[in-house]
Amino acid sequence: MNYRMVSRSLGTLLVLEAIAMLPSLIVSILYKEQTMPFILSILIILAIGLPFFFLRPSLKDFQSRDGFAVVGIGWLMISVFGALPFYIGGSIPSFINAFFESISGFTTTGASILTNIESLPKGILFWRSFTHWLGGMGVLVLAMAILPSVGSRSVYILKAESPGPSPGKLVPKIKQTAKILYGIYIAITLVQIIILKITGMPIYDSLIHTFGTAGTGGFSSMNSSVGSYGIVRYEVIITIFMLLFATSFTIYFQIMRGRLKDWYKNEEFVFYLAVVTISIMMITGDLVANMASSLPEAIRHSSFQVASIISTTGYVTSDFNTWPIFSRTILVALMFIGACAGSTGGAIKSIRFLILFKAFKRELLKILHPRGYYSVKIGGRVIEEETLTGVFVFFFMYIFILAAGILVVSLDNFDLVTTTTSVIASIGNIGPGLGMVGPVGNYEGFSVLSKLVLSVCMLVGRLEIYPILLLVLPSFWKKVKI
Amino acid sequence: MNYRMVSRSLGTLLVLEAIAMLPSLIVSILYKEQTMPFILSILIILAIGLPFFFLRPSLKDFQSRDGFAVVGIGWLMISVFGALPFYIGGSIPSFINAFFESISGFTTTGASILTNIESLPKGILFWRSFTHWLGGMGVLVLAMAILPSVGSRSVYILKAESPGPSPGKLVPKIKQTAKILYGIYIAITLVQIIILKITGMPIYDSLIHTFGTAGTGGFSSMNSSVGSYGIVRYEVIITIFMLLFATSFTIYFQIMRGRLKDWYKNEEFVFYLAVVTISIMMITGDLVANMASSLPEAIRHSSFQVASIISTTGYVTSDFNTWPIFSRTILVALMFIGACAGSTGGAIKSIRFLILFKAFKRELLKILHPRGYYSVKIGGRVIEEETLTGVFVFFFMYIFILAAGILVVSLDNFDLVTTTTSVIASIGNIGPGLGMVGPVGNYEGFSVLSKLVLSVCMLVGRLEIYPILLLVLPSFWKKVKI
Repeated sequence: MNYRMVSRSLGTLLVLEAIAMLPSLIVSILYKEQTMPFILSILIILAIGLPFFFLRPSLKDFQSRDGFAVVGIGWLMISVFGALPFYIGGSIPSFINAFFESISGFTTTGASILTNIESLPKGILFWRSFTHWLGGMGVLVLAMAILPSVGSRSVYILKAESPGPSPGKLVPKIKQTAKILYGIYIAITLVQIIILKITGMPIYDSLIHTFGTAGTGGFSSMNSSVGSYGIVRYEVIITIFMLLFATSFTIYFQIMRGRLKDWYKNEEFVFYLAVVTISIMMITGDLVANMASSLPEAIRHSSFQVASIISTTGYVTSDFNTWPIFSRTILVALMFIGACAGSTGGAIKSIRFLILFKAFKRELLKILHPRGYYSVKIGGRVIEEETLTGVFVFFFMYIFILAAGILVVSLDNFDLVTTTTSVIASIGNIGPGLGMVGPVGNYEGFSVLSKLVLSVCMLVGRLEIYPILLLVLPSFWKKVKI
Repeated sequence: MNYRMVSRSLGTLLVLEAIAMLPSLIVSILYKEQTMPFILSILIILAIGLPFFFLRPSLKDFQSRDGFAVVGIGWLMISVFGALPFYIGGSIPSFINAFFESISGFTTTGASILTNIESLPKGILFWRSFTHWLGGMGVLVLAMAILPSVGSRSVYILKAESPGPSPGKLVPKIKQTAKILYGIYIAITLVQIIILKITGMPIYDSLIHTFGTAGTGGFSSMNSSVGSYGIVRYEVIITIFMLLFATSFTIYFQIMRGRLKDWYKNEEFVFYLAVVTISIMMITGDLVANMASSLPEAIRHSSFQVASIISTTGYVTSDFNTWPIFSRTILVALMFIGACAGSTGGAIKSIRFLILFKAFKRELLKILHPRGYYSVKIGGRVIEEETLTGVFVFFFMYIFILAAGILVVSLDNFDLVTTTTSVIASIGNIGPGLGMVGPVGNYEGFSVLSKLVLSVCMLVGRLEIYPILLLVLPSFWKKVKI
């Protein structure tokens, strides 16, 4: 391990986090609230981060393991320090709860321990939602985009932080790729803020709900989430943007390059659209048939909730905990599928399911023609066997960690639906589950052990398993000669 | 497809099924019950089966796809005809229910639609339990063991019917392997019958409960299963035999050959023993702490239930539906793990989990040492990449079919725990789940659609996915030139 380089990267991350708290500080000044929580937090973070930031490592290159170390430790670290503003001002008096809220924010999960959100200061709620925006595209990708010197091997950081089985560089230069990704991210974010504002939403609320949408996080400033407004146009706008932010950013890059007409060749995008459409149709039918909803009402709620869950955002306009079992089952299934790779969404992701189905079809063909040779193709390109194995192993470990999480949380002796869906919603970075953690519930009642396990699940989900599990492998920490 | 050879094999299977009904006919004669259901069933089955049995195909060899066709169609067929005795005598007046009970028997699931088991004739209950014994080791392996002429390529039948990722022939000749397997199976069955009889269980009950144990099925002749007796020695005997029948029969073969001292080198067996021991300890602790059970009571019930679930038998001595959530979660986890490959047990099986864990460890090592080469080994032998891919795909499809099953069953609008565990218990060939399908419940309340889906899940579980899914592939039915 290149300890000096890793330490310096972590120091950089802390400095960035301190800077990222400034907008929230400004918000609390504007609303004439306590500014102490932010000033104190920024000072603590800088005091710890600056010495490492000024380290000058002799060796500037990253190895694969260094990239994973920076990502794994870095995310844990910014979540701990990100909890300071909640804790210092007394907004969240217990530190474990403050940490839970912070890691839930950065991982864009949106699971909350708050029982009365609206009672919190505006600045604090701003920080809470801003963590979604920071975590959505990745804090380290941000660092790469704006900092002058990044080692040539920092592609490993992009690999470790970006969702998807084989994160592609859009352009040959890694720094340029990071810049393009953030450019697209900022542009769509601004468009959503402006649209919400001109359709009548107050500017503060527009910012909060755009951060939650952009990062596919789901924290709201209202107790009843987006449903609080009861205004159809807000719901429609947010539905559309949730789906947009869960779409692979590669597609936007292609549109920029004028390759618009190729979208239907993107198999993952087509699969994702098909899942969204079929889910909305099935839930709409179920709500009309079994909940006596009118057709427009059913379409309104089903499309919002489907977009919210498959994008792993977690905003709510209707208490789907009371929907028929068929609709609830579809929503839970969507919690596993998730959106597209290369978006800000979480969970397993459509591309992996596509690859898994195709691999299964190949197994069947092998039985029929034992001497034939078949490869798995996506969009005409052959998927390498190594990538394929990576996808298989990812799927197994996702399910295994889910099961292990459920086992620990079951010690709290809540009902099976609460226990199971709390872990599904955490590892998938969704937020609300069913039962006690449903749309009108929260995560406050869990034990400290469960909260820690759920936090680990959020990180495992956001960073796609490896960076976190590597940290517990003893041989990971050994020094290697180069 | 070699249609003539497949038809002849299916005819043979029907003749064997007719013969297999004779013991049940004798039981109903002895108890002076209606003999009509069996006589009529046997005549119908022979009338349909004999013409095919006397086909003389020109080409005697099986291709891989023919093996899978015989297994897939064959199991569906014997389940349909196996329902006749239940239906004809009026014991189960609805044919879909009779079919459900029959397929649940043959696949050794043990899920029942009966609400009052004890009211049924002894002969009928005998047939119901005997299907477990037939299905346990495999009806086609039986055919291979006793019939004079089997094609040289019938290894494909063994492959398709036997549980486990790479079913090994014990000896070079396939017919000999089938004979050895059945020899061991019959021997342990006889030992259990004798032990139950001499410790005081009536001979009829001994037979019934041994069939259920040997096939890891779980049908009992009593309404409250093994718990009806309330006699500790029966429970201990059945616990031990459930664990024995869920152990790989390869181990017994090695013991016969005098290679007894090597058992601890069998990684799957060690893994299986570890899971059993740890589960019993955890549940015992939970029952003592949260159910105010005495320690001996807790050990008694936890060890019986752990053995029953991991072996995928499904016998019950205590209503585990009322146990704390932690214990229930462990039991549901065991429903996925299952026992050893090459036993009569169902579910995913320990060897696959071992392979999956080792493959994950390899992925981590690859990140640390990107230029290294690592292979997955079990018991010192390298697992081929192709077998590995097979295990991965199996795991994914198992979870996917489970999810699809849950989605369809959720249309019945029972609670989520009932919906989910009914499918888990069906595809894992366990029998009882939680909620409405818990130890004191049954499957009677489901719709016809759900019963059909659960039946398919049972077959998918027992035959390990491929033979059933191949049947729905159009290209499977095409004639191939040889």
